[in-house]
Amino acid sequence: MEELVGLREGSSGSPVSLRELWGPCPRVRRGIRGGLEWLKQKVFRVGEDWYFLMTLGVLMALISYTMNFAIGRVVRGSGIPELKTILSGVVLEDYLDIKNFGAKVAGLTCTLAAGSTIFLGKVGPFVHLSVMIAAYLGRVHTKAIGESENKSKQNEMLVVAAAVGVATVFAAPFSGVLFSIEVMSSHFSVWDYWRGFFAATCGAFMFRLLSVFNSEQETITSLYKTSFRVDVPFDLPEIFFFVALGAICGIVSCAYLFCQRTFLGFVKTNRVISKLLATSKPLYSALAALVLASITYPPGVGRFLASRLSMKQHLDSLFDNHSWALMTQNSSPPWPKELDPQNLWFEWYHPQFTIFGTLAFFLVMKFWMLILATTIPIPAGYFMPIFIFGAGIGRLIGEALALAFPEGIVAGGVTNPIMPGGYALAGAAAFSGAVTHTISTALLAFELTGQIVHALPVLMAVLAANAIAQSCQPSFYDGTIIVKKLPYLPWIRSRKISSHRVIVEHFMNCAITTLAKDAPLEEVARVVTSTDLAKYFLVESTESQILVGTVGREDLVQALRAEPPSWTPGHPCLRDLLAGGCLIEPVTLQLSPETSLHQAHNLFQLLKLQSLPVTSLGRAVGSVSWVELKKAISSLTNPPAPK
Amino acid sequence: MEELVGLREGSSGSPVSLRELWGPCPRVRRGIRGGLEWLKQKVFRVGEDWYFLMTLGVLMALISYTMNFAIGRVVRGSGIPELKTILSGVVLEDYLDIKNFGAKVAGLTCTLAAGSTIFLGKVGPFVHLSVMIAAYLGRVHTKAIGESENKSKQNEMLVVAAAVGVATVFAAPFSGVLFSIEVMSSHFSVWDYWRGFFAATCGAFMFRLLSVFNSEQETITSLYKTSFRVDVPFDLPEIFFFVALGAICGIVSCAYLFCQRTFLGFVKTNRVISKLLATSKPLYSALAALVLASITYPPGVGRFLASRLSMKQHLDSLFDNHSWALMTQNSSPPWPKELDPQNLWFEWYHPQFTIFGTLAFFLVMKFWMLILATTIPIPAGYFMPIFIFGAGIGRLIGEALALAFPEGIVAGGVTNPIMPGGYALAGAAAFSGAVTHTISTALLAFELTGQIVHALPVLMAVLAANAIAQSCQPSFYDGTIIVKKLPYLPWIRSRKISSHRVIVEHFMNCAITTLAKDAPLEEVARVVTSTDLAKYFLVESTESQILVGTVGREDLVQALRAEPPSWTPGHPCLRDLLAGGCLIEPVTLQLSPETSLHQAHNLFQLLKLQSLPVTSLGRAVGSVSWVELKKAISSLTNPPAPK
Repeated sequence: MEELVGLREGSSGSPVSLRELWGPCPRVRRGIRGGLEWLKQKVFRVGEDWYFLMTLGVLMALISYTMNFAIGRVVRGSGIPELKTILSGVVLEDYLDIKNFGAKVAGLTCTLAAGSTIFLGKVGPFVHLSVMIAAYLGRVHTKAIGESENKSKQNEMLVVAAAVGVATVFAAPFSGVLFSIEVMSSHFSVWDYWRGFFAATCGAFMFRLLSVFNSEQETITSLYKTSFRVDVPFDLPEIFFFVALGAICGIVSCAYLFCQRTFLGFVKTNRVISKLLATSKPLYSALAALVLASITYPPGVGRFLASRLSMKQHLDSLFDNHSWALMTQNSSPPWPKELDPQNLWFEWYHPQFTIFGTLAFFLVMKFWMLILATTIPIPAGYFMPIFIFGAGIGRLIGEALALAFPEGIVAGGVTNPIMPGGYALAGAAAFSGAVTHTISTALLAFELTGQIVHALPVLMAVLAANAIAQSCQPSFYDGTIIVKKLPYLPWIRSRKISSHRVIVEHFMNCAITTLAKDAPLEEVARVVTSTDLAKYFLVESTESQILVGTVGREDLVQALRAEPPSWTPGHPCLRDLLAGGCLIEPVTLQLSPETSLHQAHNLFQLLKLQSLPVTSLGRAVGSVSWVELKKAISSLTNPPAPK
Repeated sequence: MEELVGLREGSSGSPVSLRELWGPCPRVRRGIRGGLEWLKQKVFRVGEDWYFLMTLGVLMALISYTMNFAIGRVVRGSGIPELKTILSGVVLEDYLDIKNFGAKVAGLTCTLAAGSTIFLGKVGPFVHLSVMIAAYLGRVHTKAIGESENKSKQNEMLVVAAAVGVATVFAAPFSGVLFSIEVMSSHFSVWDYWRGFFAATCGAFMFRLLSVFNSEQETITSLYKTSFRVDVPFDLPEIFFFVALGAICGIVSCAYLFCQRTFLGFVKTNRVISKLLATSKPLYSALAALVLASITYPPGVGRFLASRLSMKQHLDSLFDNHSWALMTQNSSPPWPKELDPQNLWFEWYHPQFTIFGTLAFFLVMKFWMLILATTIPIPAGYFMPIFIFGAGIGRLIGEALALAFPEGIVAGGVTNPIMPGGYALAGAAAFSGAVTHTISTALLAFELTGQIVHALPVLMAVLAANAIAQSCQPSFYDGTIIVKKLPYLPWIRSRKISSHRVIVEHFMNCAITTLAKDAPLEEVARVVTSTDLAKYFLVESTESQILVGTVGREDLVQALRAEPPSWTPGHPCLRDLLAGGCLIEPVTLQLSPETSLHQAHNLFQLLKLQSLPVTSLGRAVGSVSWVELKKAISSLTNPPAPK
């Protein structure tokens, strides 16, 4: 009898029918089934959610691509600062709700349809869309499998989703992953980085595939292909100019970040504008768009702004490998009535102003127009405009150099004309890198253009720009977080040895409210009503103060309410309440007063923590949260004045 | 009087002389001095050790470059596995000693001078050299400033140094940084990544600068410049072949890793060989080198191995953008008596064997020759040979495809011949990526060649190869760590939700030895003599078991010895001993039984910890170290058989 049961149940746990058992070649079939089972296990071992990552990548690419056709209505602002906040552990409600998805797609399509008039991109919103899809897919996946949700797993997914967002916009998997890591987090695991590459590659591949099927391209190649000279792309002395260009981009980015933050703050605090924004967003948007549109009107001022060009054409023309200054020195090209797709750069030429005038005018106007556009409450990205702005700076300097050294810089007996396109590339990478405080923009520039010959000069320009920008201004995203007053944990910038000597005892919050298990219920009620913390530290007894765990305020209030008022034989204390089903959360991690600031900061960043208790000899002696860490970090860089 | 003191001391703390105070324009001078001080502060704010990073980069480049000229004598093996161990928190003695430096440089030069005979590279040793310099510079820097050494700061430096090592070998800053991160650590901070880029850029720039000054190159360009077709580099259906190539590389890499590990283990355990290695290293090296040299002798078997080519020429020829199969179909090139630098690929052709025979023979022979070379106790890198081997696989498949589809793959009405060079590139990246378990090799391939047109297919090949290799074999470096029995903390590969439910209580070591403050000295002496732990947990009293800190065994033994035997009024206990100057180390971090395995693992990896105490209600209840973590992780993937 036992044998029969064994047969019936099989090794996989499902009953085996007699027909199956006595069918032809049962062994072979069982072997095949076993092999398939083995293969399935192998395939799913590395990460059982690779199909999830692939779905995410492909979906985002589909959306990115189809959005280039549709039109919709206007909703709300960019997503990277909010996502950065969520990834550091804070829960922002509604941000990941799939309901906003349709509206966001529609609104973004509308913004992009306005083309170079409003001059906005799609990176930020795309990251948001991608994260929304990931959160939604995660919920579906969880429901389908019937497993409980897990926060750390969710977080992993969000980091990957951000990478996919960037990768599908530019079809650039490398820089997509690196950029999203640099912008989103301060620590990351190599595991997430691999998963990011996988999803981003799926997304980028799908995106390019669609453009092939749509017969736009012959094959899967870069978006903004350049044709720089490969053998001698630049001369050694030019390195100096590239670094100088980086420094200029750094300085301009500081000015831009300062103005942008100030203006955003002004809009928030100014009575008239903030009222207008609160009551009639469409009106404000329409007004701002009207200003921008009237300036960029091609037959008018737009003539000096090359405003007939789309965002893509702006980049294509700025990365051109000929020198416009040299080409227009003797002959001036005609102002074409229609856009000439073969000679996009004609748009940048004006007989009186020359190309220098147009480029300079473009930079001056776009500087404030971009800041104005940032305040419009529509879903739009600010990365692409910044990238183009940087390319403009680089092109201007490159053309000036080409004119200053018309013979090219002689090295090794060979004369090589200067390519202003290389400077445009370096400028784009340096300026966008400085504004966002990242250096993966250098890699993005290469992935976009398909050429990596300028690797060293571009990287050096980006490093120079970042050195200046990072020491003077918070990044674009951090600036927005500060203005929007989202929670924010700063970095420890000081690497002085002395900073390693600061320990938790120096800065922890000692004024903590603890609830003892032997506290009478009146005391508990008093504490709960007089304070508004979400959680209380539960200690063993008033005397010992030994930390047991935390109890939520909501739970306590409920339990107190449910308590029958008649129930008072003796003095009921908190312990009785807890025995009644009030949930105690265990403390999984605790600091000591001797833990260093660096260690505590690392812990908070890596494990996405909000606050931690500090115990000494088991007694709860304090707590550390973002508030204390922030204070401690700011006192490192600005030591308190001696009293 | 107080005023005078104030004047004298000035604001900078140094006394102001009267002459200085009354000299011409004291205000202007003070202003200038203040400005300089401000500039100095600004410059040194972001990272006060940027000059340190620059020195490191420049030094490594100088060494890398000058080494190509010198010859020396033979010393010992590669460095990456050992460095990986150090970075995870273990102290390996002598590894960072600068005394080994000269010997290592000399030995490596000698190895490289042997050229393609021994077929070894310099990445691993270079990382070691770079780390040695960094450790030395760090000590000099610390002494000069007079600050105490700090472990976490040291670790930061080592990660950067590894990046510089890779970057100076290939003059590729991007992939240098990413590769070293992927190989060295499981978590990394964006801050380290920026510093890495800075140092790596300095190194790569210096390296290229030197080759310009040496008139080898016109300007700063890529090492292995390719000239692939830019407009249609590959056709859409070829993506499939690229992924298949990746899968093949993954399978071959598994075979290679398995054979290599087995052979290394065999050499360690085999009596004759291990004795030979222990007593007369030069003899073993000479024997192995003789075998390798006789096989690669160009007029002999070397004829079929293209062994007249150097490592660099191997790559240059394999990345050639023509199809050799198509070119030799009708006419056969002559076997040149001297190497023809314009047509390096002639070396790969043999009238009878054709290029397919030569390539296949090359792969088969190099497979075991490389494994043999790995056991020679000389400082040598194994990355470059693996990279070339992969290029060989790719070339073979690419040529086969070019022959199978001589018309090219028709897409969009245009015929495009297949470029086997692209497959060689993908094969190199995929095979080296699979062997080292990294994907930044894809980026390395682009940085080395200066072209990024194959971005997507190469990345997809690398991902496919990694998927296979990572699920079947430990990486080259981890394998060496396992064979050499260095300490090693594995990753949590299972991403199943159930793995998130494992908590410290399930796997912690409960059998801990605690010393109570009220324990009599005889008890302490008994514990110290009967166990051999380096540290003991100190608890408040035998009864309460509340954790106070740790005491070192050495300190205890010394204190016990110093104790005068006559001193026995009453019962002296451990507390008296501690009062006598025995140092108590505070516990900075403690786990709870409820901490999850993932959290604990993250903590250990991020903070480079060796072991942590587990406390419950302040009582020491257990400890977690690498041993427990390893067991818990292995039981995740191989659940214990039900008893």
